[in-house]
Amino acid sequence: MTADLSLDIAALAEQVCAGNRRALARALNLLDDARESAREQAARFLETLAGRSAAASAHLVGMTGPPGVGKSSLGAALIREWRRRGLRVGVLAVDPSSPVTGGALLGDRLRMQASTEDDGVFVRSLSNRGEFGGLSAEVWPMSVVMLACFDVVLIETVGVGQREVDIARMCDTTCFVAQPGSGDTIQFLKAGILEVPHILVVNKADMGDVANRTRRELASSLGREHADGGWEIPVIATSATRNEGVAQLVDTIEQHRQALLGRQSLTSRRSSYQAYWLLKRLGGEFGSYGIDTLGGYDALARELQDEALNPFTQYAALRARLLKQFNNEL
Amino acid sequence: MTADLSLDIAALAEQVCAGNRRALARALNLLDDARESAREQAARFLETLAGRSAAASAHLVGMTGPPGVGKSSLGAALIREWRRRGLRVGVLAVDPSSPVTGGALLGDRLRMQASTEDDGVFVRSLSNRGEFGGLSAEVWPMSVVMLACFDVVLIETVGVGQREVDIARMCDTTCFVAQPGSGDTIQFLKAGILEVPHILVVNKADMGDVANRTRRELASSLGREHADGGWEIPVIATSATRNEGVAQLVDTIEQHRQALLGRQSLTSRRSSYQAYWLLKRLGGEFGSYGIDTLGGYDALARELQDEALNPFTQYAALRARLLKQFNNEL
Repeated sequence: MTADLSLDIAALAEQVCAGNRRALARALNLLDDARESAREQAARFLETLAGRSAAASAHLVGMTGPPGVGKSSLGAALIREWRRRGLRVGVLAVDPSSPVTGGALLGDRLRMQASTEDDGVFVRSLSNRGEFGGLSAEVWPMSVVMLACFDVVLIETVGVGQREVDIARMCDTTCFVAQPGSGDTIQFLKAGILEVPHILVVNKADMGDVANRTRRELASSLGREHADGGWEIPVIATSATRNEGVAQLVDTIEQHRQALLGRQSLTSRRSSYQAYWLLKRLGGEFGSYGIDTLGGYDALARELQDEALNPFTQYAALRARLLKQFNNEL
Repeated sequence: MTADLSLDIAALAEQVCAGNRRALARALNLLDDARESAREQAARFLETLAGRSAAASAHLVGMTGPPGVGKSSLGAALIREWRRRGLRVGVLAVDPSSPVTGGALLGDRLRMQASTEDDGVFVRSLSNRGEFGGLSAEVWPMSVVMLACFDVVLIETVGVGQREVDIARMCDTTCFVAQPGSGDTIQFLKAGILEVPHILVVNKADMGDVANRTRRELASSLGREHADGGWEIPVIATSATRNEGVAQLVDTIEQHRQALLGRQSLTSRRSSYQAYWLLKRLGGEFGSYGIDTLGGYDALARELQDEALNPFTQYAALRARLLKQFNNEL
């Protein structure tokens, strides 16, 4: 594969905004291309896109939880409900890189893609390349593009670890999906090993008593108030297979967005996502030494949050500044 | 606190090898002291210790699993059994830094310390400073010291994430403790999100049918052969509160050690721990850029595995080489 020199960036951005699937796939491939010429094109593309898109009106939703709780079926049910309400939906599915899971997740993905013949839905799988403590490097730039094209962007991950914390820090609304009878999940939430999600979902509610008990346990084991403030964490029971509770979950996700808008905190959350991504990436490439060289984590986070360049340009500037600093120091 | 200039390193090493608790506590504090003068003393201390100790005959055992499965009670039961067999036991307990867990773990710790009035047992808690993807920075140097003083060193962590993978890579034998009915744990193991431990333990076996079912599920959900080769992963049922299955678990842990010794793989495992720790630490401080500057992860891992300096001296050498390389490059 060679860099696509003939790429017309302005045309591509226009097609992406118009919802052209092929253009979108091409744009996401461009973001995923690590070569320097592609990086420059990607930065120009994001720049052009920023001038056109209405990303601020879209909703970035994270869905996470352990394997086996039925996230993919629930994802498909959510997509159907959003579509029924006339919303266009983009999905970023972050896979663990484990060869063990490859097979199982592929099956899930196929089940989910049953809904993708619909033109208002687009699914992109991201492999986890072991970077960023498990977060695929391009998840933020890809979110930026998806937000320009869709009303709802759903990021799905599998696990209970740093990657899920990372996703929660870069989404407007995070849903954690648990399974009836899964004591571990509750223990993880109680122990604070998971960041507290905005919405807890007990899937497989058709399991009856066990589901009710898990729902009560979850509701009582957590403080009701989210750490962000101004939001009581609801516990929603769903049955993806019977399509029960799905409309209520979609309503609740929208209520959280309204709550964020109501207290004007969506904007400040949004501007923090890119700063978080930039610092994760900088730490992965240059370590604490690199971050300290540029003034330390907190100072950098504040500084980055105030800027509004596209992620690639901003990262390139940060990297250039750091390498120059190394040079002056030594 | 100022650096202890009066510290007699040779005397400290002698006292530590003789099993003096106060000397051991002082030595561990020295390893935990980030100031440069303390680092030099710590390196000299480890050097002196290496000349005296019989660490190779000690057994480094990791115990991990989600919160709430009764690891601390099981840890206390294991310690009693090891003591009954005349073995001296050191414990490194790695806490999550979460303020939420602080309280709960403190309670667990106190329960475990009931056995520490016994002079043949020593417990040290390590706070997790969020470094190394969750691994406390000094866990390896502290293990080195503990291995010089005890017959068994137990490293305990809480979770199902990168920290547990890190611990598994730096222990001779890793036990994963699950709870009856905890579907999540099985899902994590199946999904390969956890490294496969050497021994699976279903604690709270007094829960009867549920425990038996979980035991069967665990046994059937995993390949019986460990990825290391030459070892079938046993599933042991224990009841820490009733002291059932504990002697069998201790036997099984020893059998794994004998298996490692039998196929001469304990030595190669051991030499890989420090290389893993050094590279984790180098990545945390200098990122992938730093590791690539020194020739890349695989080449460095091979090179580091052949050396046998103390961890601080080896890290200092690696760091100096990297900074020099930066200097030449720019």
